[in-house]
Amino acid sequence: MLEIAFQPDRSGREPVYRQLEAYLRELVESRRLAPGERLPATRELAASLGLSRNTVSQAYQALVEDGLLSSHVGQGTFVLRRPGPALRPVAEPGARGFAWAGLFSRRAAATALPAALRAEGRVPNPPFDFRGGQVDLGSLPRAELRRAFARALEPLGELASFRDPRGWPPLREQIARSLVARGIRCGAADVAIVNGAQQALDLAGRVLVDPGDTVVMEQPGYFGAALAFGAAEAHVVGVGVDADGLRTDELARILRARRVKLVYTTPAVQSPTGVTMSDTRRRELLELADAWQVPILEDDYDCELRYGAPPTPALKTQDLAGQVIYAGTFSKALFAGVRIGYVVAAAPLLLQMVMSRMAVDFHTDLVTQAAMAELLASGGLERHVRRVRRLYAARRAALLEALRAHMPEGTTWIEPAGGNTVWVTLPPGLDPVALHAAALEAGIEYARGDVFTLDGSCADRALLSFARMDRRKIADGVERWAALVRREQARARRTA
Amino acid sequence: MLEIAFQPDRSGREPVYRQLEAYLRELVESRRLAPGERLPATRELAASLGLSRNTVSQAYQALVEDGLLSSHVGQGTFVLRRPGPALRPVAEPGARGFAWAGLFSRRAAATALPAALRAEGRVPNPPFDFRGGQVDLGSLPRAELRRAFARALEPLGELASFRDPRGWPPLREQIARSLVARGIRCGAADVAIVNGAQQALDLAGRVLVDPGDTVVMEQPGYFGAALAFGAAEAHVVGVGVDADGLRTDELARILRARRVKLVYTTPAVQSPTGVTMSDTRRRELLELADAWQVPILEDDYDCELRYGAPPTPALKTQDLAGQVIYAGTFSKALFAGVRIGYVVAAAPLLLQMVMSRMAVDFHTDLVTQAAMAELLASGGLERHVRRVRRLYAARRAALLEALRAHMPEGTTWIEPAGGNTVWVTLPPGLDPVALHAAALEAGIEYARGDVFTLDGSCADRALLSFARMDRRKIADGVERWAALVRREQARARRTA
Repeated sequence: MLEIAFQPDRSGREPVYRQLEAYLRELVESRRLAPGERLPATRELAASLGLSRNTVSQAYQALVEDGLLSSHVGQGTFVLRRPGPALRPVAEPGARGFAWAGLFSRRAAATALPAALRAEGRVPNPPFDFRGGQVDLGSLPRAELRRAFARALEPLGELASFRDPRGWPPLREQIARSLVARGIRCGAADVAIVNGAQQALDLAGRVLVDPGDTVVMEQPGYFGAALAFGAAEAHVVGVGVDADGLRTDELARILRARRVKLVYTTPAVQSPTGVTMSDTRRRELLELADAWQVPILEDDYDCELRYGAPPTPALKTQDLAGQVIYAGTFSKALFAGVRIGYVVAAAPLLLQMVMSRMAVDFHTDLVTQAAMAELLASGGLERHVRRVRRLYAARRAALLEALRAHMPEGTTWIEPAGGNTVWVTLPPGLDPVALHAAALEAGIEYARGDVFTLDGSCADRALLSFARMDRRKIADGVERWAALVRREQARARRTA
Repeated sequence: MLEIAFQPDRSGREPVYRQLEAYLRELVESRRLAPGERLPATRELAASLGLSRNTVSQAYQALVEDGLLSSHVGQGTFVLRRPGPALRPVAEPGARGFAWAGLFSRRAAATALPAALRAEGRVPNPPFDFRGGQVDLGSLPRAELRRAFARALEPLGELASFRDPRGWPPLREQIARSLVARGIRCGAADVAIVNGAQQALDLAGRVLVDPGDTVVMEQPGYFGAALAFGAAEAHVVGVGVDADGLRTDELARILRARRVKLVYTTPAVQSPTGVTMSDTRRRELLELADAWQVPILEDDYDCELRYGAPPTPALKTQDLAGQVIYAGTFSKALFAGVRIGYVVAAAPLLLQMVMSRMAVDFHTDLVTQAAMAELLASGGLERHVRRVRRLYAARRAALLEALRAHMPEGTTWIEPAGGNTVWVTLPPGLDPVALHAAALEAGIEYARGDVFTLDGSCADRALLSFARMDRRKIADGVERWAALVRREQARARRTA
C-alpha cells in the first residue's frame, strides 16, 4: 500500500483535517490509492502522522460524504470501487466558468451560518457527545414506530390523493386533543402541521416580516430563531433573560423605542438557559403585547420534558386576544429527523401561513404525518415520553453531580426545570475558544455559548446536553472536560 | 330528527355551499342537531332542498374538516359525540381583538393564491377527476412501500442522530446513480434532498432573487413556479411556448431589455402544455444563458413518464458551464404526499441553497428519505414506473380518442409526449368560467387554463389529467363534459 506522507501546514489558515482531506482526495482521484484499497485505521494514521485521531476521522468522514471512500464499522475505510468520474462533484469544475458569487441575493447573505455551527457536527458519533438537539438512541420506540408507519400506509389511496396544506386531519385532531389536555383551547381547525417548529418560525417570518422590520428574541436564545428571522431580513433585537425568564422591563423599553413586528420566546424551558418564565413575567409580557399590538411566537419545543415541578401551562392558555402563535414539535419527544411540528394560531394568521407555505413546499410529508397520528392515537408517544423523562431525570442528576464534583471554582450553571441541557458559565480568565478546540480534539463535543447570541457574546458559556450518554459516560466526560478547563486556566495564567 | 329548512340566498356573493355550511354549523353548535345524530344522505338533502348533491357534499366536507361532523363510507355522516368547545376554532373569536390584517408582510401579500387554485380540491374524490397532480391509486406499490418503510427504520439510531441538511447519504447516492443513467454527470456530493421539487424552486428564489429582480418562466407555465418566485417578490416575466418549447427568440429580447436573475423551464414535458423542447431550442437556450450569464432552473418533474419516443436527455446533460440547476421529484413517479425532491447544481450554489434551507426547516424528513433510498436500491420504484407507464399510455390513448369522438368542432389539443395531462383549447365563443362551474356541479373537476398564467389569460384552456380514472370513466367524463361545452356554446349563441 501507498505510504501516506502528509505534512500539515500549521501556519496555514485551513484546518489540518481539511488539508488532509485535500491530500487524500488527490490520491484517490489520481488513482494512486486504487479503488477497493483499504486505508489505514484512523488511530494508526493519526499516530504515524503525529495528528489527533479526530483530525483523521474528520478527513475520512468528509471523503465518505463526498462518495470517494466508504466506511464500514468493524471493517475499515476503503476507496470506493466504482469508477471515479460519476461520483466526483463534476458540477464544480464546470462552475468555474460561471460567476455564482455575483448572483446571490441579500437574503442568501443574511442566512450565512455562524462558523461555530458550520463546523459542528462533522463527526457523527463523538466519544463524548454533549451536543444539543440529540436524544437517547437506546430508548427509541422502535416497535411502536414500525407499527405506526405500517398502519400509516394502510389508507394509501387517501395519502396519495390528499393535498390540504394544513395537514392530515387525524394528526391535527390528535394534536388538538393533546393541546387541550395541556390547557390550550383549540380544535383541529386551529392546528396546521409544519416541518418541525423551525418551519413555524420561518413562516411567521415570511408572513409578518418585511426586510428591516424588527423582531425581538431572547438573548441568549435559540439559534434557529436567529437563522429564521435573519433569513427574513428582519432587524433582530435581543432582549435579556434572567432567572425569571424574558426581561419584560427591557422589552418595554424596546417597544417604546421602535415598532416591533414579533416577539419570539421560549417560556417553558428557555433556550438555551433552561430557565422557566415566572407567572408575573408572563402576565407582563401579555400585557405589553396587548398594549403594543405585537404578536408573540411561543416556541414550546420542550414542553414534555419536565423534572420535579408539574408542567407549566403554556403562555397560549392565557392568550385572550388570540395574539400568541403557538409552535410545538416532535423533535424532542421523539427525534428531530421526524420533521413534524405544529402551529396553533388565530384563523387569519394561520390561513396566511398555510397559503405562504404552499409556495415553499405545499405540505409536510404525509406518510410521516399519518404515522405520527397513529403514534399519538395509540398512546405510544406518551408512553415513550414517560420512559425518557425518567431516563433523562437520572442523567440530569448525574450531570449536575459531575459538575459539582469536578469543575474548578468559579464555574456556575443553571439547574434546568425541563429540557435536556445545562447552561454552564466557565470560570473567568481562560480562552473559551481554545478550550472548545481542545475538547473537540479530545472527543468531547458541546456547543459554545456564542452559537446562541446575535453579537458573538457568551463564548464563555457552554451548553451541555445530558440526552445521549449514560450516567457513567456523562461523569467521565465532565471529569475530562474539567481537566481541560484547568489546563486552559493554567496556560492563561502562564501567558498573563 | 330536526328538519333542515335551509333557504339559499342566490343573490348573495357567498357560494351556496358556504351558506349551507354556516347554517348546519349553527345547528350543531346550538345542539339543535344533537351529538351522535345522523344527518340525511347528501342525495336526500340535495333533493329536499333543491340543491346539487355536490353543494351538500362540500358543506358536509367543510364541517368534517372542522371536526363538527364525522363521515364514514357506507354508514353516513354524524354529529361528533365529543363536546363542542374543544373542537371549535376558539382562536378565531379572540382574534377579533387583534389587528392581524395590518401586520402582514409584502411577501405574504405576494403569495396570495389564484382564486381558482384556492377553490380547487375541496372535494377529495369528485366523480370525474381530471385534476392534475394526481396519480392512479389502484397501482400504488403498497407492499414495496411497506417493506421500504420497515427497512428504513432499521438504522433508527443513525436516523435519530443524523442532521446533514444535504440529506441522507444513501438516498443521495441512489439518486446520483439514477441520474448518471439519465446522462447527467454527477455524484452524491452534487445532490441535495429537498421537500419535493417545489422546495428547489423556493430555495433558488431565496438564494438568487432580491425583491424586484427578474425571473423568466414559460407562459403558460407551472403555477408552483409562479407561487415560489412571486413569494420571493421577483418580477416574474413570461416567455412564450410553441410546439418546440420555450421561445428562445422572445427570451433573447427579454435578456436584451433587462437583467434576468433566473430562467425557469420544463424542457422534457412542458408544464402545462406537454410539449417537449426541441434540440435546436435547447442549444439556443444554453447559448443565451452563457452569453448573459444567467442560471437556468430545469424542472424535470415528469421525466419518467414518456410515451413512444425514448426519454429526452435532460438539458443538464449539455450544461458545460455548470449553470443549469436541475430539480427532480418523486411526486409523479410515486405520489406527491411523499415530499422528496432533489437538486443537482454547481457546488457554490448548492452550498448556498443548503445553508439557506437550514433557516427554513433544517432538512427533509429522514424516515421518508431512508424509505425512498430503499425503494430505489431494491428496484421497486423502477418496476412501479414501468407498470404505470403502460397504464398511463392506455389512458392517454383513451383520453385522446374520447376528445376526438366527443368534443365539438373548434376544440384543439396537444398530444403530449410525456406526463399525464392533455392541454385542451376550447372552441371560441363560450364562457369558460361558466363551463368550469357547470362541470364542477356535474362532478367533473379539471384545472382551468388561467391557473397557469401570470396574467389570467388562457381561461379558454383546460388541463385534463388521465392519471386517476380508468379508460371507461375517462371516456364517460369527456362525453359528459363535451355535452356541457355544447350547452354553453348554445347559451352563448342565445345571449349573442
